[in-house]
Amino acid sequence: MKHEINLERYAVRTDLIVETIAQYKDKKGIHMNTKQFDQVRLDEVEIDEEGETYYNKKRGMYQTITFEDVTDHTNRDKVQEVFSFALKDLLSKHQIKEEDTCLIIGLGNGKSTPDALGPKVIQSILVTKHLFDLPGSNVSSGYRNVAAFAPGVTGTTGIETKDFILGITEKIKPQFLIVIDALAASSIDRVNKTIQMTDTGVHPGSGIGNSRTEISQDTIGIPVFAIGIPTVVDAVTIVSDTIFYMLKHFSYNKENIKNYKTKLIPIMNRNYLDHEENLSDKDKMKLMGLLGNLSEEELKTLVFEVLTPIGYNLMVTPKEIDFLLDQLSHVVAKGINETLHRQINS
Amino acid sequence: MKHEINLERYAVRTDLIVETIAQYKDKKGIHMNTKQFDQVRLDEVEIDEEGETYYNKKRGMYQTITFEDVTDHTNRDKVQEVFSFALKDLLSKHQIKEEDTCLIIGLGNGKSTPDALGPKVIQSILVTKHLFDLPGSNVSSGYRNVAAFAPGVTGTTGIETKDFILGITEKIKPQFLIVIDALAASSIDRVNKTIQMTDTGVHPGSGIGNSRTEISQDTIGIPVFAIGIPTVVDAVTIVSDTIFYMLKHFSYNKENIKNYKTKLIPIMNRNYLDHEENLSDKDKMKLMGLLGNLSEEELKTLVFEVLTPIGYNLMVTPKEIDFLLDQLSHVVAKGINETLHRQINS
Amino acid sequence: MKHEINLERYAVRTDLIVETIAQYKDKKGIHMNTKQFDQVRLDEVEIDEEGETYYNKKRGMYQTITFEDVTDHTNRDKVQEVFSFALKDLLSKHQIKEEDTCLIIGLGNGKSTPDALGPKVIQSILVTKHLFDLPGSNVSSGYRNVAAFAPGVTGTTGIETKDFILGITEKIKPQFLIVIDALAASSIDRVNKTIQMTDTGVHPGSGIGNSRTEISQDTIGIPVFAIGIPTVVDAVTIVSDTIFYMLKHFSYNKENIKNYKTKLIPIMNRNYLDHEENLSDKDKMKLMGLLGNLSEEELKTLVFEVLTPIGYNLMVTPKEIDFLLDQLSHVVAKGINETLHRQINS
Amino acid sequence: MKHEINLERYAVRTDLIVETIAQYKDKKGIHMNTKQFDQVRLDEVEIDEEGETYYNKKRGMYQTITFEDVTDHTNRDKVQEVFSFALKDLLSKHQIKEEDTCLIIGLGNGKSTPDALGPKVIQSILVTKHLFDLPGSNVSSGYRNVAAFAPGVTGTTGIETKDFILGITEKIKPQFLIVIDALAASSIDRVNKTIQMTDTGVHPGSGIGNSRTEISQDTIGIPVFAIGIPTVVDAVTIVSDTIFYMLKHFSYNKENIKNYKTKLIPIMNRNYLDHEENLSDKDKMKLMGLLGNLSEEELKTLVFEVLTPIGYNLMVTPKEIDFLLDQLSHVVAKGINETLHRQINS
Repeated sequence: MKHEINLERYAVRTDLIVETIAQYKDKKGIHMNTKQFDQVRLDEVEIDEEGETYYNKKRGMYQTITFEDVTDHTNRDKVQEVFSFALKDLLSKHQIKEEDTCLIIGLGNGKSTPDALGPKVIQSILVTKHLFDLPGSNVSSGYRNVAAFAPGVTGTTGIETKDFILGITEKIKPQFLIVIDALAASSIDRVNKTIQMTDTGVHPGSGIGNSRTEISQDTIGIPVFAIGIPTVVDAVTIVSDTIFYMLKHFSYNKENIKNYKTKLIPIMNRNYLDHEENLSDKDKMKLMGLLGNLSEEELKTLVFEVLTPIGYNLMVTPKEIDFLLDQLSHVVAKGINETLHRQINS
Repeated sequence: MKHEINLERYAVRTDLIVETIAQYKDKKGIHMNTKQFDQVRLDEVEIDEEGETYYNKKRGMYQTITFEDVTDHTNRDKVQEVFSFALKDLLSKHQIKEEDTCLIIGLGNGKSTPDALGPKVIQSILVTKHLFDLPGSNVSSGYRNVAAFAPGVTGTTGIETKDFILGITEKIKPQFLIVIDALAASSIDRVNKTIQMTDTGVHPGSGIGNSRTEISQDTIGIPVFAIGIPTVVDAVTIVSDTIFYMLKHFSYNKENIKNYKTKLIPIMNRNYLDHEENLSDKDKMKLMGLLGNLSEEELKTLVFEVLTPIGYNLMVTPKEIDFLLDQLSHVVAKGINETLHRQINS
Repeated sequence: MKHEINLERYAVRTDLIVETIAQYKDKKGIHMNTKQFDQVRLDEVEIDEEGETYYNKKRGMYQTITFEDVTDHTNRDKVQEVFSFALKDLLSKHQIKEEDTCLIIGLGNGKSTPDALGPKVIQSILVTKHLFDLPGSNVSSGYRNVAAFAPGVTGTTGIETKDFILGITEKIKPQFLIVIDALAASSIDRVNKTIQMTDTGVHPGSGIGNSRTEISQDTIGIPVFAIGIPTVVDAVTIVSDTIFYMLKHFSYNKENIKNYKTKLIPIMNRNYLDHEENLSDKDKMKLMGLLGNLSEEELKTLVFEVLTPIGYNLMVTPKEIDFLLDQLSHVVAKGINETLHRQINS
Repeated sequence: MKHEINLERYAVRTDLIVETIAQYKDKKGIHMNTKQFDQVRLDEVEIDEEGETYYNKKRGMYQTITFEDVTDHTNRDKVQEVFSFALKDLLSKHQIKEEDTCLIIGLGNGKSTPDALGPKVIQSILVTKHLFDLPGSNVSSGYRNVAAFAPGVTGTTGIETKDFILGITEKIKPQFLIVIDALAASSIDRVNKTIQMTDTGVHPGSGIGNSRTEISQDTIGIPVFAIGIPTVVDAVTIVSDTIFYMLKHFSYNKENIKNYKTKLIPIMNRNYLDHEENLSDKDKMKLMGLLGNLSEEELKTLVFEVLTPIGYNLMVTPKEIDFLLDQLSHVVAKGINETLHRQINS
């Protein structure tokens, strides 16, 4: 059996820089830095000119916040704290000053739960531009000039998202943009458990399969900070992730088969995630045949070729998405409000 | 007692041309024409240069559809039919051609039930602009190039509605606009029972007390058709309307006191609306004192002066507003879709 | 002119005990006590056997909380504090113990904004019954066994509210009930500005014109505490209240006509609410004719007879109802949670 | 490698009878009958005493409607027609008469999109019980006495669903029940593409992992018809389905490798679903090792053991669930209304 791999045609989709980088054994053209805040992890990645070509990812700063559970109150507060820390850092790297005006744009479809992150965040943003615009206005110091809107999706407005943003931006002339969107994850452990922010802008719709034009400093002319959370994942990812977990699982159990301590742990409790898979090619062949010896890229392409012709490469979201999205949009909105307005929580 | 009437300060608010005109005994500078379609009435009013000054209302065409009950299925279909008839008429008077592109804007706050008409209508508009924009697009004839959006309210976006509309309009360059908004009524029999459309544009927020700048052909540069439905009414209007109804009620009962046929009708069933009040000034004085002899304007000003200092000039909406708005937004959206796209229902 | 007053047929509707009592000059069969907490007022009324007959109101305890503005954060916290104080008091008067189980019922139609108080409160109630029901359950002390549901309205379920409540109550056997409902106000200054709680139960639907059977200790067999907020008011009330305010306004201005200090206050700023109307009958006759000399009851009946035959006795709600209801339901839910579960906020 | 299969502990979950039966090569104790209506398929399955033991499924009638796409208008109408046909058949088999009273119960959480089928259907049910209950009621013939409610979920009410249903049923005494719920699918091609109805009742929550007590004729004492649609699927199912599809895909391509006609079909267009997999064990071993030779049960258990310890056995729903659920609940509500009330669409 030979299956054709055609990466141009079936390019693996990923919106998260940490997932992209993880696919490369040799790293180059990047600077990485990881900080841990209790259970919450912050990966700062800077991609330079060399990295841009190598990873096919736009050069710039990427901040990735990874967390386990946002339904827990304490954990949620911590995530929001790290969020504010990272956003402040990103703004300061671009010399955004306290008096610079900001326009916040919530992309996505408010009527479709997993795609509603942007519109939901916008609902809780503290806007002040109309107060600054009042004749004789005298807004307290510590509050920034902020506007916000959710343009909806092209399918229900007929308008390209980029035209929408350009139209408003040219009219009200903010000094920087913050754009919020739901993303697609390319590994199941990221879904609703990661916030990525970057100064490289956004391609609306790119994460969910239809490509519109880029919204970034290059195309809009002012700094564009993008904030994204992966809320959906496709079946290809679920399957190929699981096959790699299987190999890990086999490797872990093989290694521990004579370990009396491990043997007493019920199989359902054996968390092998940190185990480094070290099966021989022969073992892999025995356990999973040719399938066991594919690279991640090859495996994803194969699964894509299996599921697509029969219409089952579903893009899915966890069934608890309504509750998770409530929490996540709260974290993002609160984090933005605190970062933009010095007067809040200071 | 002398109460100061200061119309500049407390100008009686009305968004409906038929209400404005009804306040004037002598008509000038207008051409009126009334059509009746079963239970639905269509008043076509054209205001010319003379009328503009006289009524302090912008010159142009006003179409007013009056109906009783939109929860009844048959009646709703009839209202929608008259709506399409009137809108087609208005478009054709401005030489709007089948291939002219249209942008529809739904004003108001989708989170506030009585103000949600615009956003609700937008949800059911058939948009096609993105299909026309596709490379090699080949949209069936009979469908117009239509885009639609709901800009939200300044209080939650920080952006002036007019800036919003100008920004999008300059970017996507439609050939005409349709703007939908909820209005304030200045008589209780109009609430949720009237649709007004006009080619004179709209003042967002003017109907609910805060004035933004005009959206019209004069300010936007392309024809602007405004569609409005009064969904709220203020306490001043409820009270002054009722006082005039009292006089009618007294007059009717006085006239019929010796009419044996009328006497047998229970008082609660005596529909006196079509009765022409003809009480003598002396009768009015006896029944309602000085109050009975005020003009409508004087009465409204008095009630305004009574209610405002104590904070009770509420703007209210009927408690069934959720259901009524569902029906009304359906009528407007369906009527617009049918009018703009020849292919629908043809 | 003689208009027939038929109080049996057109009985003035009021759901608030303080409004009922205010209509009587001579008080009997009641004990009243008023407490002021900053801007929030608490009226405790106990009606005994004599009062029950005299006022035609069920004997029992009524606690009425009156406040101005629940959109202000500080004020809202104060209202909630008084709410908890009053509810605790009511429960302790009935010897409700910390371990007594409670069922909370949110009446009304969640799809109709002004009628959605009950269902909205239920959404934020902390329920625990299912945890107590778990085999080997060991719920922390300080948490009460609480269940909650919103039965919907008969028009959409086909089921009498009382049957619904009896069915569940007989099955799960709580030791007391709390029932929450939106009410109709009979004065405009009460709308969204009053919370009434009572141990006399509730007549679902009575406040909005259709009478179902009573839900109370007499009919259910366990203590029933009812919590209500007036969210709607009818046009009759708006008009008759305004006519009385007119008299006050005239009286105030007459009295102050020579008072130089008052004369300098703009008429729109003259808050005459605390002024005691003291016009002579002759003055009233001159100003408002026979209308000026009607009792409140007579006036309401007249207005009812004027508006009803022409279909304009609308029941209305302020146009900001969506936002107000969010705040009010939050206050009630938080107040109930704190009162029922000692562990919360202690 | 030996992995322990423990079906008591990790029993494969399936709510659909056709999926259960498909897992058995030898059929016994059932009568099956398949009807095709254009693109819509109806499988009627009757399980007898022998089948009950053999399949571990309750004896009774199961009707399964299978369709591709409910967003297409024509197809949706056809599904609804088949739905009414099947429901009428089920009712008539139980001698349900036109005058028998019905209570409809919509299970699930209206606030969680993939679980909201029941509550959404209830919103569109035509209820009449309150009209039959009116004194001197005279409901037109052709309308049945119907009540309906959505009890919510135990997590937000604290009340066991079964207690809720028993409480209401004992109070209003309907002659039969219809219960609607969202289910979990155990194959990805069923999600949002199947409606199952049965006379064997329902286990609320069983499809989503937590077991409450049965609601059926045995426990309630009147006929209970359950209507379910699978809206969620777990990661185990997605992965094990895909592995079987892989084998089919390999088998198809092997068989057609020399077929010039097939070779010209792009791999992405090769719909191999109807192909019968016929790889030799040796081929399977080569392609997928031991994995390729597991039975469906063994494979599911293995995947379960791989995903569960690391927390990734997500239960998911397609990202378009909001739109699909709107369509599906419309089909079910309309189908029920037409079946219960002869007067509708007759």
